[in-house]
Amino acid sequence: MTVTRPSARKPDEMRPVSFERHYTRHAEGSVLVSFGHTRVLCTASVDERPPPWLRGTGEGWVTAEYSMLPRATHTRTQRESGKGGPSGRTHEIQRLIGRSLRAVVDRRALGERQIVLDCDVLQADGGTRTAAITGAFVALVDATRKLRRDRIIGKDPIHGQVAAVSVGIWKSQPVLDLDYAEDSDCETDMNIVMNDALGFIELQGTAEGHAFRHDELEAMLALARKGASELHAAQREALARD
Amino acid sequence: MTVTRPSARKPDEMRPVSFERHYTRHAEGSVLVSFGHTRVLCTASVDERPPPWLRGTGEGWVTAEYSMLPRATHTRTQRESGKGGPSGRTHEIQRLIGRSLRAVVDRRALGERQIVLDCDVLQADGGTRTAAITGAFVALVDATRKLRRDRIIGKDPIHGQVAAVSVGIWKSQPVLDLDYAEDSDCETDMNIVMNDALGFIELQGTAEGHAFRHDELEAMLALARKGASELHAAQREALARD
Amino acid sequence: MTVTRPSARKPDEMRPVSFERHYTRHAEGSVLVSFGHTRVLCTASVDERPPPWLRGTGEGWVTAEYSMLPRATHTRTQRESGKGGPSGRTHEIQRLIGRSLRAVVDRRALGERQIVLDCDVLQADGGTRTAAITGAFVALVDATRKLRRDRIIGKDPIHGQVAAVSVGIWKSQPVLDLDYAEDSDCETDMNIVMNDALGFIELQGTAEGHAFRHDELEAMLALARKGASELHAAQREALARD
Amino acid sequence: MTVTRPSARKPDEMRPVSFERHYTRHAEGSVLVSFGHTRVLCTASVDERPPPWLRGTGEGWVTAEYSMLPRATHTRTQRESGKGGPSGRTHEIQRLIGRSLRAVVDRRALGERQIVLDCDVLQADGGTRTAAITGAFVALVDATRKLRRDRIIGKDPIHGQVAAVSVGIWKSQPVLDLDYAEDSDCETDMNIVMNDALGFIELQGTAEGHAFRHDELEAMLALARKGASELHAAQREALARD
Amino acid sequence: MTVTRPSARKPDEMRPVSFERHYTRHAEGSVLVSFGHTRVLCTASVDERPPPWLRGTGEGWVTAEYSMLPRATHTRTQRESGKGGPSGRTHEIQRLIGRSLRAVVDRRALGERQIVLDCDVLQADGGTRTAAITGAFVALVDATRKLRRDRIIGKDPIHGQVAAVSVGIWKSQPVLDLDYAEDSDCETDMNIVMNDALGFIELQGTAEGHAFRHDELEAMLALARKGASELHAAQREALARD
Amino acid sequence: MTVTRPSARKPDEMRPVSFERHYTRHAEGSVLVSFGHTRVLCTASVDERPPPWLRGTGEGWVTAEYSMLPRATHTRTQRESGKGGPSGRTHEIQRLIGRSLRAVVDRRALGERQIVLDCDVLQADGGTRTAAITGAFVALVDATRKLRRDRIIGKDPIHGQVAAVSVGIWKSQPVLDLDYAEDSDCETDMNIVMNDALGFIELQGTAEGHAFRHDELEAMLALARKGASELHAAQREALARD
Repeated sequence: MTVTRPSARKPDEMRPVSFERHYTRHAEGSVLVSFGHTRVLCTASVDERPPPWLRGTGEGWVTAEYSMLPRATHTRTQRESGKGGPSGRTHEIQRLIGRSLRAVVDRRALGERQIVLDCDVLQADGGTRTAAITGAFVALVDATRKLRRDRIIGKDPIHGQVAAVSVGIWKSQPVLDLDYAEDSDCETDMNIVMNDALGFIELQGTAEGHAFRHDELEAMLALARKGASELHAAQREALARD
Repeated sequence: MTVTRPSARKPDEMRPVSFERHYTRHAEGSVLVSFGHTRVLCTASVDERPPPWLRGTGEGWVTAEYSMLPRATHTRTQRESGKGGPSGRTHEIQRLIGRSLRAVVDRRALGERQIVLDCDVLQADGGTRTAAITGAFVALVDATRKLRRDRIIGKDPIHGQVAAVSVGIWKSQPVLDLDYAEDSDCETDMNIVMNDALGFIELQGTAEGHAFRHDELEAMLALARKGASELHAAQREALARD
Repeated sequence: MTVTRPSARKPDEMRPVSFERHYTRHAEGSVLVSFGHTRVLCTASVDERPPPWLRGTGEGWVTAEYSMLPRATHTRTQRESGKGGPSGRTHEIQRLIGRSLRAVVDRRALGERQIVLDCDVLQADGGTRTAAITGAFVALVDATRKLRRDRIIGKDPIHGQVAAVSVGIWKSQPVLDLDYAEDSDCETDMNIVMNDALGFIELQGTAEGHAFRHDELEAMLALARKGASELHAAQREALARD
Repeated sequence: MTVTRPSARKPDEMRPVSFERHYTRHAEGSVLVSFGHTRVLCTASVDERPPPWLRGTGEGWVTAEYSMLPRATHTRTQRESGKGGPSGRTHEIQRLIGRSLRAVVDRRALGERQIVLDCDVLQADGGTRTAAITGAFVALVDATRKLRRDRIIGKDPIHGQVAAVSVGIWKSQPVLDLDYAEDSDCETDMNIVMNDALGFIELQGTAEGHAFRHDELEAMLALARKGASELHAAQREALARD
Repeated sequence: MTVTRPSARKPDEMRPVSFERHYTRHAEGSVLVSFGHTRVLCTASVDERPPPWLRGTGEGWVTAEYSMLPRATHTRTQRESGKGGPSGRTHEIQRLIGRSLRAVVDRRALGERQIVLDCDVLQADGGTRTAAITGAFVALVDATRKLRRDRIIGKDPIHGQVAAVSVGIWKSQPVLDLDYAEDSDCETDMNIVMNDALGFIELQGTAEGHAFRHDELEAMLALARKGASELHAAQREALARD
Repeated sequence: MTVTRPSARKPDEMRPVSFERHYTRHAEGSVLVSFGHTRVLCTASVDERPPPWLRGTGEGWVTAEYSMLPRATHTRTQRESGKGGPSGRTHEIQRLIGRSLRAVVDRRALGERQIVLDCDVLQADGGTRTAAITGAFVALVDATRKLRRDRIIGKDPIHGQVAAVSVGIWKSQPVLDLDYAEDSDCETDMNIVMNDALGFIELQGTAEGHAFRHDELEAMLALARKGASELHAAQREALARD
């Protein structure tokens, strides 16, 4: 017997996902990604001055920054500017986004330049980090396509797809793609980043209530494979347009 | 004889202006304002816990914060988070927005609460502060309408309209509503905030090249009156919908 | 066919583990934990003034701070003092330690007080965060025993044991408890926090090289269960003394 | 019918103005300027190491810093040191001083060096920023004279005079050079920076109470011309001594 | 045989010392103290809101802040504002000034209020901290006299005099009151704070070159007694005026 | 008639002193020094990249950092990380340690490299700065011995010994090596740094209660000579092992 989710979705059902490419004009890649009401603007900026420690290595770098607009959330959140730097949570998320994207980048093919992915949450309804990773991948591809069109690099530096989903145990039931109502009330919360061969790039699970068992882990991993496959398909479709 | 503007506009012609109300879900007021390619998301957040110095006064407060997304601009701008606080330019702009809006607010009618206007520039093409003030006014009205609908306040605290335009001397010619191409190359740059009786709320003019003469000032003020009138009309039309 | 580990350990062999209780005089709990050459001083400090958001809830809190002495590492690391706050890595680790310990604490039995676990790495050789969690648990128990001895609390607030191990894929082979030589050169690195029923409290896996497969995950989880069981036994033995 | 000003001055009457040159020994220019009880120490420091962005341009730079001694004011003001940087107000003022002085400097004639104007308020009684600009100009001239005397530069880089006055509407009456008693209680406050041809370099007007009308603006501008002319004369006289 | 000092003073000769009381208008005590070319503005501000830890104790507090104007020195010094707080040297000096003054204050007679001594160096030529302590004492007395005149306190809280001198070994010769030329080139530098009974309040000696011997210490202490006696006399004379 | 010290020591008796060399593995010098219950871990790290201002001088540098673990003290002390830099007290102490050690270092013989002494207090019971200086000297010698063994430098850069003791007036009686119980309750507190010829390197005395007289100073200096001699002997003995 299953419990009804707040959004009336089935346990293994993702929210509607969309990618709006070329959302802003100046960035080399600019994607507004939506996972239901969660909307994140992901821009990819090519920086030809690589960080100092990269010089002479012949390799590039991909990094990310993450932020929420103050009123992306139900109640206003204070800006991190003037607070002496990003919070611990922000740090964790932007390190996660950067690691996830680098897992599908051939840093040598990218050459000695840096691509910065800015993920700014315009509206939050749970799953902002998974939406950010999934959308940032599309912005990253757009930026590398431009580098190739402009004949700045020759070889495609992207050697796979990367997408992220959240899964969890909500009211004792494994569910896919938690929204805010579920996220704030779940027993276990897990973010999983997968490539398009469904290999694990990152796995982060936290027991919010009780410790979770091995069979619960297996159930969540099965949901994650389903969600990631759908996201990979949606990315391919979005990138086929234009 | 006039010089052709980069955008082919006439000297006294504003860029297309639009207001997209209810752009995000959570804020009491949420307006995406566009002045041509300049797009600013203005949200109004009601905070029932007023700042400490307000307690016991029976009066409310309206304040503003302003920020640019890193890739709103041609080249990526570093975030101000982790830099030990907003820059001087950011401080000036957010103080200006706050003062301008307070000029049309009856702080007693607002009661002991604060409304915070967050103005986040999604895309910049000159005139971000004038767009921010003009859009924030609409978001502020939406927030106060909600306060009245929810019967939290009785009397309308908004006693006028406020809009802002930029004027300048570009290639020796007074022009209205400078875009980025003009702004980065003009001799004089002036931001004027006006109420709907065309009284001055704020006047900030800077000679970038030569000092400007009294007759040039008069020509710019005439343009400002035309621009402000058009913005006041556009605000009224936007607020008449829904 | 297995590859020889730098330390000549078997793939499923932990380093020697020891707990030196009452290592310093002032703290309510003070444990020097060693995982081989990794040595972490974990102190538990009872703070009778709980954080403001706890007041009136009748519940307590457990939190952690983590730091390395500058020369705990091969080359000197700069102190985080005067750098505008802890780094992202430090933030992640101390949030992880805090969450892990709270998973076995009955916050109501603790009452409105806070216990702060300070985990200071005196010498680092890989696995500092897993040593820190495992040692901090012992210090936490010592502190709660003192609270009960002093009749400040009645009921034991500790309802389980918590220990953490690292597992990974090193030279294509799943291994338990990575030391620095392995850690800096592994393909996958996973930290697993488990209670004494071998339920998962936290699971954090990162593919450093290639994405890892489901069967590799299963092999690592089996190693983790072995390591965690040994640590739980060692904790019990240490706590049985005195 | 006019209202009597707190200082018994006529509406168009400035406070006594004086310049004490060579007030301290080490700076290339050092002027204690007084506008009535407002006293500001303005020092000009020549820095032969220009900021990085200036290198190779062949041009110089003039910048300013502004501060109040803690007890320049009626009640003690906290130092900005240790507060994470200057306040918004301080930023606005020092940017204004810098822009105003650069308007009369031939940056090519100055060569690749920087002159820093430090404006430290020893005693405040309203109009500190206008006094600072007016005094800093005299210090700047002294510093450039020394550069020419020392044959470091050939051509005089100063091609005009700059002075600043405040005007306002106080008890419905336009007045010149507001002191603290008027400033804290006026309806409109405007700072005007003018060169010696009475061209506008900067114009910053703020309606504190009601929006101000076009005829009020004209009346204030007439007062500003009178005040600026008197300040230019006083600067010339001070610089003619020695 | 003695070496000639840069200032042609005798080894046991102080620079001319003067106190200009009531130098600024707003502070309860305001003294411009000069030790030769070293000039420090010392203001005493009474703060009726004592620091939190003082409440309920019935005792007052005296504290100090010290700063140099950027161009008090031969080359411009960067402001400490925006540098994340005062430097180590500044901290040491302001702690020293505060301790020295508290040594002659009856904190109970002062009542639950705080007096803040701001010591701002307008011009530096060595010995700024000794001048600051000596001048701050006079400002403190003026502030407490005002408190008694205004009948806010009854009993005089000042139970002694405090003055500070520097002594040192310069070119192997013990000298009194080092100026900048000597200070930057001496073998030993010692700051001594004494009350009017010539008891030691603070003694801080540093060997810049070689360690100093016991007989050198004795010679410096003899000079310090002479200097301190002269400063105590000068303070009494300054305080006898008006 | 003498008063009994809390530790039952004689007035001129030091606490047991010990040096545990090679306490940690990675540092070039690593010494756990104990003065009774005060335990400080002193590590010496050789940094071959000297600070920028040293380049081209042919000379080396020795500097120190000092910190307390949060629970080294009776009640937990907040970490200085994230507080915008070390406190004033910390600054004073680390400057003192650095100056003291440099007094016995031939900076030319050291060559263009820096040695950083990290002094981290594991357990505090008074006299942490004197223990830190005394222990850091031993760590510094170990680091320079390693530099000579590795043939990085030729000549021994250490030309003397340095040790530090505290002396004070406690219950009107001069005492040597104050512990926490005495330190928090003494009338005068003096830290004295001496080389092995018993010359003064640093002398810092503070009257906590009454100003101290010349004869009291002499009595304290005699105790300091006794204590420093014992510490020099203990250092020599520790360095003779291995």
